[in-house]
Amino acid sequence: MSPNVETRTQRLATLLGTELPIIQAPMAGSQGSALALAVCAAGGLGSLPAAALMPEALRAELTVLRAQSEGRPWNLNFFAHQPPAPDVAREAAWRQSLAPYYAAYGIDPTQVPAGAGRSPFSAALADLVEEFRPPVVSFHFGLPAPELLARVRGWGSKVLSSATSVEEALWLERQGVDAVIAQGLEAGGHRGHFLWRDVSTQMGTFALLPQIAGAVRIPVIAAGGIVDAQGVAAALALGASGVQAGTAYLLCSEASPSPVHRAALIAEATRIRTGQPASGTTLTTLFTGGAARGLVNRAMRELGPLDNAAPAFPLATAAIAPLRAAAEKVGLGDFSPLWCGQNLSALPVNGSISAAEVTRALAQGLAAG
Amino acid sequence: MSPNVETRTQRLATLLGTELPIIQAPMAGSQGSALALAVCAAGGLGSLPAAALMPEALRAELTVLRAQSEGRPWNLNFFAHQPPAPDVAREAAWRQSLAPYYAAYGIDPTQVPAGAGRSPFSAALADLVEEFRPPVVSFHFGLPAPELLARVRGWGSKVLSSATSVEEALWLERQGVDAVIAQGLEAGGHRGHFLWRDVSTQMGTFALLPQIAGAVRIPVIAAGGIVDAQGVAAALALGASGVQAGTAYLLCSEASPSPVHRAALIAEATRIRTGQPASGTTLTTLFTGGAARGLVNRAMRELGPLDNAAPAFPLATAAIAPLRAAAEKVGLGDFSPLWCGQNLSALPVNGSISAAEVTRALAQGLAAG
Repeated sequence: MSPNVETRTQRLATLLGTELPIIQAPMAGSQGSALALAVCAAGGLGSLPAAALMPEALRAELTVLRAQSEGRPWNLNFFAHQPPAPDVAREAAWRQSLAPYYAAYGIDPTQVPAGAGRSPFSAALADLVEEFRPPVVSFHFGLPAPELLARVRGWGSKVLSSATSVEEALWLERQGVDAVIAQGLEAGGHRGHFLWRDVSTQMGTFALLPQIAGAVRIPVIAAGGIVDAQGVAAALALGASGVQAGTAYLLCSEASPSPVHRAALIAEATRIRTGQPASGTTLTTLFTGGAARGLVNRAMRELGPLDNAAPAFPLATAAIAPLRAAAEKVGLGDFSPLWCGQNLSALPVNGSISAAEVTRALAQGLAAG
Repeated sequence: MSPNVETRTQRLATLLGTELPIIQAPMAGSQGSALALAVCAAGGLGSLPAAALMPEALRAELTVLRAQSEGRPWNLNFFAHQPPAPDVAREAAWRQSLAPYYAAYGIDPTQVPAGAGRSPFSAALADLVEEFRPPVVSFHFGLPAPELLARVRGWGSKVLSSATSVEEALWLERQGVDAVIAQGLEAGGHRGHFLWRDVSTQMGTFALLPQIAGAVRIPVIAAGGIVDAQGVAAALALGASGVQAGTAYLLCSEASPSPVHRAALIAEATRIRTGQPASGTTLTTLFTGGAARGLVNRAMRELGPLDNAAPAFPLATAAIAPLRAAAEKVGLGDFSPLWCGQNLSALPVNGSISAAEVTRALAQGLAAG
């Protein structure tokens, strides 16, 4: 391992203000302040995903974080997408393809509201967040407009964003982010790409990370497939200064995936370890309109995970929501986004694990060099 | 790094009979015995790809390998696919979609022969190979029939094969392979999958390697995105006993990619390093019918890389071949398989590099722990 690994990891920890250069990936819908606080208490950087929270819920979570973080830094994550114009014809066509499912579940399609479901960072959100002065703010899908970014910097927040190509990493560096998250395709949830659209060309962590680390001068945080000490050691070997891990934290006692999500993760991890045919994960636009990685389920199989007519991100969120709710009520994840990454090695299939245990396990990889 | 890395790498090198647990990936169409011999001389395991060679060409290459390997082990690679039945209607429809290109290049479609272009390992090939007793034989797309596999073992050859899932790795272990190659999706060329067909669910090296290493007892060879010392160190951290590298050797002076292939690789590596929009690589079935990773080119953009009507592997090889030849004649790679992996870090963009230099650079990663 190169002699400057310790320098690199220390530089990132100093930047973040944490003991460890380990970030818990924000996972909207599967966790709140409880997981973030547990990771912070263990020396990592806990993250609160803000994108799917209504303003009052966000304020409540921020109040908890401020009160209970005991001076430790934490990360607030926002989306920074350009909201698309609603497309009435596309929305109608999409609902038409969902019609058999609505009928099967007795859902009246005329009662299914439209809407975005996910809001990008905005002046109104900046007004709300300002008083909480988050120590770190991370963005997904690029960055907000320069004046908004300047406000965030003005509070003293360190700024991170995700790159899925060398081009994106260099672009983010030019905009002045403090560190870049290299998101390999192994990662669960939404792709953070913003300068290209062809997800078929996205790179795995093994290819993306060293190419980004070779191109930028700011610290690079590795994401995608990193779930344990050996993953951290490998990421450092490939030029990372630290890691962001999501899937490893998904079944922690402090996380809150839905019961169907939890059950699906345990079943899949069991299949993989025993060599049974796995469901696998793939990218899908079904649940939000944006390409995101989750376990293959019925909706993906029947409607096509990517080659479907779902409205643009995040407008697809609304139409499938009532199907998700109805199926989950009877214990089925057929219409649920079962987000997870490709590496399920660290998921407990029996019993539970705490965020502190996961963080300590990851931290073992920091000293492995 | 775990204390047993040295034990693992030593065990694999002993199995292969090499100084180094480093395998040069067989790259049909881009190399022959010259590259294999250069890698062997540098202490690695050089590979000769046999799948695209006619029997007499194969015999000639084997004669060179036997004469010049000076007792060092080398690897002979075969495909082990099930040849599909020709589908006349599909072939005709496919040629119809190529018709505008045939017309543009003045190619008479009635003169374009059909055919497989790639042969799986067979009794006839076993007869040919037997006298050369290859020290190592690797297979792609599973394994040949048990009686054929028994013949290979009977010569004393060590047997390797590729896995793209934990399920495939455990299957190969049960068939008695000596080591398994974990092929992450970063890898260039053909996917080696044989127990599943949905390439959208394939895993990156960062997720595939540790999950396979955690499931099998035989040595695991990492492939996909590994091009330099840091890649080797990372692969060892993730549980590998050694590596197989292809792209890193593609521009070696002893390799023989076509001029358009070479030019496209240099141009892409330059774009990535300078943060320019890259062509990217993706999986395509256009060139053989099997999903294989190469640089995005005109044929992929216009015909669709995967969602096209190309005949089943390897029957698609014939129809596009004359287009490839005609375009290459005028310096264009529009219809050429520009195979390469996702990590172009190690490609020289100016000047040349020898296979010995690449092998030594990779070997630096063995001692990194």
